[in-house]
Amino acid sequence: MIGQTIDTNSAWIAQRLNELGIDVVRRIAVGDNADMIKNALDDELLNASIVLITGGLGPTADDITKPLLCKYFGGKLIVNEKVLAHVIQLFEKRKRPFLERNMKQAEVPDNCIALHNRMGTAPGMLFLKEGKYIIAMPGVPFEMMTIMEDEVLPRLKEHFISDAIVHRSIMTSGEGESFIAEKLQDLEEALPEHIKLAFLPHYGGVKLRLTGRGSDKAALEKELEQLSRVFVQRLGTIVVALEDVPLQQLIGAELVKMKATIGLAESCTGGYIAHHITQVMGSSRYFRGSLVCYQNDIKENVLGVQHNTILTHGAISEATAIEMAVGARKVLGSDYAFSITGLLSAGGDDDSVPVGTVWMAVVNLDTVKTKEFKFHFDRERNKELATQMAMLMIWKFLNNKL
Amino acid sequence: MIGQTIDTNSAWIAQRLNELGIDVVRRIAVGDNADMIKNALDDELLNASIVLITGGLGPTADDITKPLLCKYFGGKLIVNEKVLAHVIQLFEKRKRPFLERNMKQAEVPDNCIALHNRMGTAPGMLFLKEGKYIIAMPGVPFEMMTIMEDEVLPRLKEHFISDAIVHRSIMTSGEGESFIAEKLQDLEEALPEHIKLAFLPHYGGVKLRLTGRGSDKAALEKELEQLSRVFVQRLGTIVVALEDVPLQQLIGAELVKMKATIGLAESCTGGYIAHHITQVMGSSRYFRGSLVCYQNDIKENVLGVQHNTILTHGAISEATAIEMAVGARKVLGSDYAFSITGLLSAGGDDDSVPVGTVWMAVVNLDTVKTKEFKFHFDRERNKELATQMAMLMIWKFLNNKL
Repeated sequence: MIGQTIDTNSAWIAQRLNELGIDVVRRIAVGDNADMIKNALDDELLNASIVLITGGLGPTADDITKPLLCKYFGGKLIVNEKVLAHVIQLFEKRKRPFLERNMKQAEVPDNCIALHNRMGTAPGMLFLKEGKYIIAMPGVPFEMMTIMEDEVLPRLKEHFISDAIVHRSIMTSGEGESFIAEKLQDLEEALPEHIKLAFLPHYGGVKLRLTGRGSDKAALEKELEQLSRVFVQRLGTIVVALEDVPLQQLIGAELVKMKATIGLAESCTGGYIAHHITQVMGSSRYFRGSLVCYQNDIKENVLGVQHNTILTHGAISEATAIEMAVGARKVLGSDYAFSITGLLSAGGDDDSVPVGTVWMAVVNLDTVKTKEFKFHFDRERNKELATQMAMLMIWKFLNNKL
Repeated sequence: MIGQTIDTNSAWIAQRLNELGIDVVRRIAVGDNADMIKNALDDELLNASIVLITGGLGPTADDITKPLLCKYFGGKLIVNEKVLAHVIQLFEKRKRPFLERNMKQAEVPDNCIALHNRMGTAPGMLFLKEGKYIIAMPGVPFEMMTIMEDEVLPRLKEHFISDAIVHRSIMTSGEGESFIAEKLQDLEEALPEHIKLAFLPHYGGVKLRLTGRGSDKAALEKELEQLSRVFVQRLGTIVVALEDVPLQQLIGAELVKMKATIGLAESCTGGYIAHHITQVMGSSRYFRGSLVCYQNDIKENVLGVQHNTILTHGAISEATAIEMAVGARKVLGSDYAFSITGLLSAGGDDDSVPVGTVWMAVVNLDTVKTKEFKFHFDRERNKELATQMAMLMIWKFLNNKL
C-alpha cells in the first residue's frame, strides 16, 4: 500500500493456475488491517470458488492474517506438533536461537489443514467453506512457491475440474502495435468465440498471444497451431520467435546448435547484457565472458582499441564499436563477439554525442555488422531497451537475418 | 490475470501518493472484461475519494476501458483536436504511417478532462463525480508516470488536503526478523498510536520502517528522527544504513567522498554486480569496469590468475578469488577491486564444490579480505543474494567494518 514492494507473487500464481485451466478473475491487495482483510475476503468468496491469500503470516506484530482467518472461520489456535518440530529443526540448521516468539509460528487454527512449508517457518493453511477453498500462504516468494508446488496445486488439480486453456505466442520486432493490429484485422475478426488475441507491447517489440479454451485440449492445441501458422505467414519478417522465451534463451539454443562461443565488450550497458546471457542455465557452454570497460583507457588497454580511434571518432562511434568487438573476440577467444558503446543519460563524461546515442557491433571471423540507435527515455529504460536491442542484433546475426 | 506481466505501476503510484499524504486503501486488478471493470469501479467508489485506473487505453480491440468509462459516466466520444494534433506529430516524429485506427486514439469522452500524455498517443482522462476524482491512464509505465507527474499529482495536491506521512527506514544485515523483533519488543510496544513499525525482509537483511502520520509535518519529522536514533542504538552493529537507498548508491557516495575508484572481476554473477553499480547516475566517476570471466582460461589470460592456482585449489576457492581481485585491480587500474567466483546452480562444468558455494575477495593497495558463502536457493535467487552480499562486503570494506 505504500509502494515499497513490487508484487511478483500474483503473476507467478496466475501463470500456474492458468496451466491448470483455472481462471483468475480478480486480484485484491489491502494493508495489514483487519477490517480491510475481512471485507476483501467477503467480496472474493462471493465470486470465486478458490481464494488464495499471501502474506501476513510472519512472527512480528504487523502479521495479523493467521489469527484473523482463525476467527473468521470460527476456530482456535493450537500448537501443531508437526509444524513445531519443523520450526525447531530449521532454527537448529540455521544456528539461530529459538525464541518464545517463534513458538507462535507453530500455532495453527484447529479448523484448517496445515500446509507444509519446506523453505520456512510459517505453514500455509487450507480452510474449507461450502465447497470453496481458502488458502493462506506466506508472502516470501520462494516459500509461497514451494507451498504452491508441494501442497496447493496438487489439491486444486484434484478438486476443481475445468476447461483446458492453451496459449500460443508470437514474438515480433520492428513494428508498433497499431501497425500489426491493422495487418491482422481481418484475421482477428474471423477468430472463433473461444479464441482470443492479445497484443502485449514489450521491450523491443510486440508479443502476440492467442488464447483458446475448451474441453478437448488436443483439438484446441491443433487449432491454435494452425491459426498461429496463418498469423505468422501474414506477419512475415517481423516475427522473431514462436515461443514465449526470452531472447537470451534463443541465442543460447542457437549457439549450442552451432557449437559456437560468444564474448562481449560492454560500455554503457555495464554488464547488463552479460547478466541476461548468463541467466540461462548451461550458458557456460557458449559464453566466454564480457569485458565491461567503463573508461576510455580500459577500452584501449583491455580491448586494444586504438588511442587514435577514440581521439578521432570519439568513444561513442562506429569505429570504436568495431574495434571493441574485434578486440573482445581476440581477448576472449570466442567465435562471435558483440560490442556496445553509448551515452544512456546526461551527466556522463562524454558530451560529444546527443544523449541516447548508442553504437553496436557484432563480428565473427570474417564479417562485421554495425548499427546505430537513438534512445529517448531515462537511463534505466534506455539500458533495458539497449540490452534487448543488443540481444536482438546478436540473434539476427547468428541467423543471418541482419 | 494470466501472469504474463508483473505490476510495477501500483507500487510506484502508491509511493508518490504516500508522499502527498494520500493513503492507498485497496488495489484491484481485473481482466479486460466490461462487467468486472464496472464492478470494481462501483466497489472502489464506495470507499475512496480518488480512484486511479491504468491500462486498456491502447488502439487494439482488447482495449475497452475508454468507451466503458465514457458510458459509465454518461458521456460520448468526440475527437479532441489538441490530442489529435499531438498524435499526428508523434507519428511523424517516429516516421510511422498514421492509420485510421490511430484516429481513435484522439477520441476523448466529452465528460472528462483530457490529460496530456507527452510520451505516448493515449491521453489520460479525469472524470469528476460527487467530489470524487476518477482518473484513467495508459498502462505503459513511463507514459503513466509522465501523466502522473505532469497532470495528476499537481491536481491531487491542490484538491485533497490530508495529514502528513513521514517514514524513517533502518537497513540491517546479519540477523533475522524474529531476532530483531525480540530485541525491539519493548520499544515497539511503547510506540505512540500514530507511529507504526514494519519489518520488511529483503535480500541480505531486514528493513525496518517507522511510519508516522499527523498534521504537523515538522514535529512529526523530529519525533521520528529521535525514535529512529533510539532504535539504531539498540540494534548496534547490524545497522547498515539509515536511508532507504540501495547499496550501490551507498557504495557510490562513499567512493566519491574518498575520491577512489573500483573495479570488479565477476565469474558466477556474470556482470550483475557491475550492472547494479552502473545503475547509479554518475558511476563513471568511480567505476572502472568489470572483467566478467566465465571460463578458467580467461581468468588466467585476462586477470592473470595462475594456472597452478586453479589446478591446485580449484576455480571456486579463496586462492582463486584473491588472485582474481588482485588481477582486476591491476588490469583496471583501480584503487579497490572486488572478485567473486562460485557455483550458483547444478549443471555447470565445475563440480568440485557443493552447489551454492561462493568465494568473494576485496582488495586495496595493502589489504585483502575474503569470505565464503553457501547459498541454498535456485540459480536466479542465488545470483540476487550473491550480488547483494557482494555489495554489502564492498560497502563494509570501504567503511572499515569488515
